[in-house]
Amino acid sequence: MASQGAVPLRPAFQLKTPKGTRDWSGRELHLRECIFRTASEIFELHGAIPLDTPVFELRDILAGKYGEEARLIYNLEDQGGELCSLRYDLTVPFARWLAMHSDVKQVKRYQIAKVYRRDQPAISRGRLREFYQCDFDIAGSYDPMVPDAEVLRVVVDIFHALELDITIKINHRQILDGIFDIAGVPADKTRTISSAVDKLDKSPWDEVKKEMVDEKDLPKDVADRIGEYVQRSGSMSEMLASLKTVTEFCDNPLVKSGLDDMTLLMSYLEAMNIIDKVSFDLSLARGLDYYSGLIYEVIPQTNGSTIQVGSIAAGGRYDGLVGMYGKQPVPCVGVSLGIDRIFTILDARETKKKSQKMARDAEVFVMAFGGKDFDGLLPERMAIAGELWKAGIRAEYLPKKKPKPQAQFNAAGGVPVAVMLGQDELAAGQVRVKAIQAEKEEGATKDRGTLISRSDLVQEVRMLLKAAGL
Amino acid sequence: MASQGAVPLRPAFQLKTPKGTRDWSGRELHLRECIFRTASEIFELHGAIPLDTPVFELRDILAGKYGEEARLIYNLEDQGGELCSLRYDLTVPFARWLAMHSDVKQVKRYQIAKVYRRDQPAISRGRLREFYQCDFDIAGSYDPMVPDAEVLRVVVDIFHALELDITIKINHRQILDGIFDIAGVPADKTRTISSAVDKLDKSPWDEVKKEMVDEKDLPKDVADRIGEYVQRSGSMSEMLASLKTVTEFCDNPLVKSGLDDMTLLMSYLEAMNIIDKVSFDLSLARGLDYYSGLIYEVIPQTNGSTIQVGSIAAGGRYDGLVGMYGKQPVPCVGVSLGIDRIFTILDARETKKKSQKMARDAEVFVMAFGGKDFDGLLPERMAIAGELWKAGIRAEYLPKKKPKPQAQFNAAGGVPVAVMLGQDELAAGQVRVKAIQAEKEEGATKDRGTLISRSDLVQEVRMLLKAAGL
Repeated sequence: MASQGAVPLRPAFQLKTPKGTRDWSGRELHLRECIFRTASEIFELHGAIPLDTPVFELRDILAGKYGEEARLIYNLEDQGGELCSLRYDLTVPFARWLAMHSDVKQVKRYQIAKVYRRDQPAISRGRLREFYQCDFDIAGSYDPMVPDAEVLRVVVDIFHALELDITIKINHRQILDGIFDIAGVPADKTRTISSAVDKLDKSPWDEVKKEMVDEKDLPKDVADRIGEYVQRSGSMSEMLASLKTVTEFCDNPLVKSGLDDMTLLMSYLEAMNIIDKVSFDLSLARGLDYYSGLIYEVIPQTNGSTIQVGSIAAGGRYDGLVGMYGKQPVPCVGVSLGIDRIFTILDARETKKKSQKMARDAEVFVMAFGGKDFDGLLPERMAIAGELWKAGIRAEYLPKKKPKPQAQFNAAGGVPVAVMLGQDELAAGQVRVKAIQAEKEEGATKDRGTLISRSDLVQEVRMLLKAAGL
Repeated sequence: MASQGAVPLRPAFQLKTPKGTRDWSGRELHLRECIFRTASEIFELHGAIPLDTPVFELRDILAGKYGEEARLIYNLEDQGGELCSLRYDLTVPFARWLAMHSDVKQVKRYQIAKVYRRDQPAISRGRLREFYQCDFDIAGSYDPMVPDAEVLRVVVDIFHALELDITIKINHRQILDGIFDIAGVPADKTRTISSAVDKLDKSPWDEVKKEMVDEKDLPKDVADRIGEYVQRSGSMSEMLASLKTVTEFCDNPLVKSGLDDMTLLMSYLEAMNIIDKVSFDLSLARGLDYYSGLIYEVIPQTNGSTIQVGSIAAGGRYDGLVGMYGKQPVPCVGVSLGIDRIFTILDARETKKKSQKMARDAEVFVMAFGGKDFDGLLPERMAIAGELWKAGIRAEYLPKKKPKPQAQFNAAGGVPVAVMLGQDELAAGQVRVKAIQAEKEEGATKDRGTLISRSDLVQEVRMLLKAAGL
């Protein structure tokens, strides 16, 4: 390799990106951009405004919001001045923004930005320390479950637009807390038992029970009672019908309130024509502390695919978070899309299809040929490319003063249209154009294309591009 | 204010973004997005690939690249692991990427991302600690000045698309270094004298001379000789004609080489039809150490505007930077757009015009009315909004179970089309549609719109939107 012979100018150090981070370029970036655009358009269809917050926040803003996970926060060095940390998610910055704008009573906002977690990275499975989140939230006081239903509709619309089949698992924190209450879980163990229940999507009940009893000191009979309830799942109508027959559920005010919410939600999801996408799953618990009502996780239906990415979006209602900043509480409900996981699935599909090219390749290659006095016609090639750029056509030329014919054809490989210049023809106000995609290079150098008036250039090129299906 | 009565749940701290940073939302974000889209489209027209790098880099990567300005770099705390810093610009990450990809021999890349500098912020003048850069660079070995000319063409095209009149001031580091050489500046003072010269766009010659003589210990006669040369500026053809008559310039190999480059560049800029945008200004020096050839700065022609933002884009050739990573050197030329300054100018213009609305407002408001048994028809309003969303129409409804008529008309203020539902009409498969923008609210509640078949809804709404000029 050419670089082996170079003499390092300074002591060598490892040339890489920091642990758990990576560069993105070309086709991958275009695919990611396409996901962002799809999501943004649907957010705006629902009247959401975009929000952009700084990549770091005052450390006090993040403090006390993430429980144990706070150890994963990246801190900035104290270089004199304020203590700051990189954002850990987009929810806390939004809550901070809401607390700062107490005049905003109701708002839908979306934010697409990178977040930072000093976790153990697993790059092949798409788990990085720097990764994108894409959040949509509805803040403010509304009639019950109305914004919750709209968030789920937004989720369905986005994955429909991305052509990804999904199931939305839903549950309700009050139902779950009520069940723990009925089963006899002490109040101070509610959250830790809740996170054990949340593992039921990956582990069998026996293992989860073992964790509750052995690690978390829950009496065996309490765990058994939990197990009886939380392993139930099904359609909303089946589940609601069945749960409403359980007397102790209807007697528990938490469960009762949660079931009322779910009944109302069902009628709205039916009206919005997305009820078939939803599964009511009592084992869904979600890790974060701040959820207070409806919770949900989106699972992709990757039929037969080998990619197992877990949930690709998740969220819920968090009515207490904004109030933590000492201002008036603002009820919120929202969803966060797991962009990197969605990317992984779509990327595998695109690679499988192979046909779709995400890179914007050149459409026209501008060449020049001549006899023994040939000076390369570089300014003339530049001028022609300039006319094409002006018309919004992606044009290139070989950036050499005196290019050889074969070098130009090689560089034009895959470009559908060639514009060919000759000294005498240019003097007569003429250029040649030619479709080159399907031909072999050998033959191409012989066929000299169609002679046209230079003033017709853009029009002729557009016709050739159209004929080539572009 | 409602928030005054709330009891803080935790000790109060200042609710704000970190010093020198700010939130962005709504119309401002849409305007910024519009600048990004304009630039990206032109970069891609020229065959550039997008690149995205991590927000932080290994500290060693940034070390020794920024001279005195390195003190403005934000460091991450050492939390066990690698030492990292937030990126200071997009050029060094690109050079690192090139050094890591020695198989990439020639590439055009662009990157639009935030960079971080612990500078004294001046928010009103658009100077922040977190701000966007938008870079376009051409890397690799090419025939002289060919990529340089293309970068300038890209600059002209972008500002043309943004409808901003500009002048590009250009100069050449070799010419400047040669002039210092001729004038008798000691080699170790070249860069510090160069940065004094760079102040000539803001300060008169006397002050700059004072800095050279008093602060930088340059002999007075040396400073005078510099002053004689560097205050010259004009069109490329005038300047080249005049400079080529100076014997000592033609005898100095540095100046000679710079003038050859400039002569070649002139022929390419003429071919690309942008020569009238360029002014050859010998006082342009640029601060950064790594420039090695052509340098340029873009100055807006804000006729009569009160906004003075300085240069809105700048760049040049830096052939030595990639080699600093101990690999094969890769010659590069590029430009960085000052997004925040461009934003400030365009924002002032938009505000002046007032007419242009950047926010995506709702297009349709879905309402319901009824008699004394009226239940609000919320699921029905949701279903209708769902049909409109599906058709890509921005629809809203009042998120209340039983909304009053006037509350719905108030919420619909400014929305051009209303869809109105009644129980009996819905039962007969019909809804009412109505253009509401121009009317007064009073009258609007009385006119009940046109009764149409529900199956024609999307089509009828589209016609009304079209009639409203949307």
